[in-house]
Amino acid sequence: MKIVRWDEDAYHFAAEKMQKIGLHASDGFFLDLYCLEPGQEQKAHAHDGSDKVYLVVKGQGRFRIGDEEATLSAGESVMAATCDMHGITNDSGSQLVVLTLMAPPPAPRAK
Amino acid sequence: MKIVRWDEDAYHFAAEKMQKIGLHASDGFFLDLYCLEPGQEQKAHAHDGSDKVYLVVKGQGRFRIGDEEATLSAGESVMAATCDMHGITNDSGSQLVVLTLMAPPPAPRAK
Repeated sequence: MKIVRWDEDAYHFAAEKMQKIGLHASDGFFLDLYCLEPGQEQKAHAHDGSDKVYLVVKGQGRFRIGDEEATLSAGESVMAATCDMHGITNDSGSQLVVLTLMAPPPAPRAK
Repeated sequence: MKIVRWDEDAYHFAAEKMQKIGLHASDGFFLDLYCLEPGQEQKAHAHDGSDKVYLVVKGQGRFRIGDEEATLSAGESVMAATCDMHGITNDSGSQLVVLTLMAPPPAPRAK
């Protein structure tokens, strides 16, 4: 059995942009950790035919879902349904880690 | 935007059996918190056509994937691919919380 860590041992940050750490994936989904330094973002975008869930693991940031924005902290989560615009901005002064699910994965997978 | 807590505010345990707390779901997946008191289990079973991921959020327990078993602790995760037998036993002395993804969801969803 392949045991995959999803705690701080798996986090990876880089000065140039948000990092995506792939945890698990299949034809039906992918599950990543997104690691954002202060000031980094995932620009708002949408997927036709896939839902996405953001679960905040560490820190806090500003999340856009559709036309709404809210600040989420560790222990909170939101879903963007198919075609909903969604994005993240780490407007805090600390590192932000977000467990991110997409189901089904986009084809081809854009990473 | 509907913000859903997935931290201790969402946990729910019951003496009679493992509890499943639904967090997010769509046609493509469901994402639940499984809360197991010491001694509780999810009996080994398999799904034809769906993958499942277990991410340990709190505590530790014994996980079966296929013919293998291992003890996983908070911060570790495993995937059961379609048709792989999988199950959980909380053989520890403390509460166990597991973030559980299934994609796609079984039809009809058995809960």
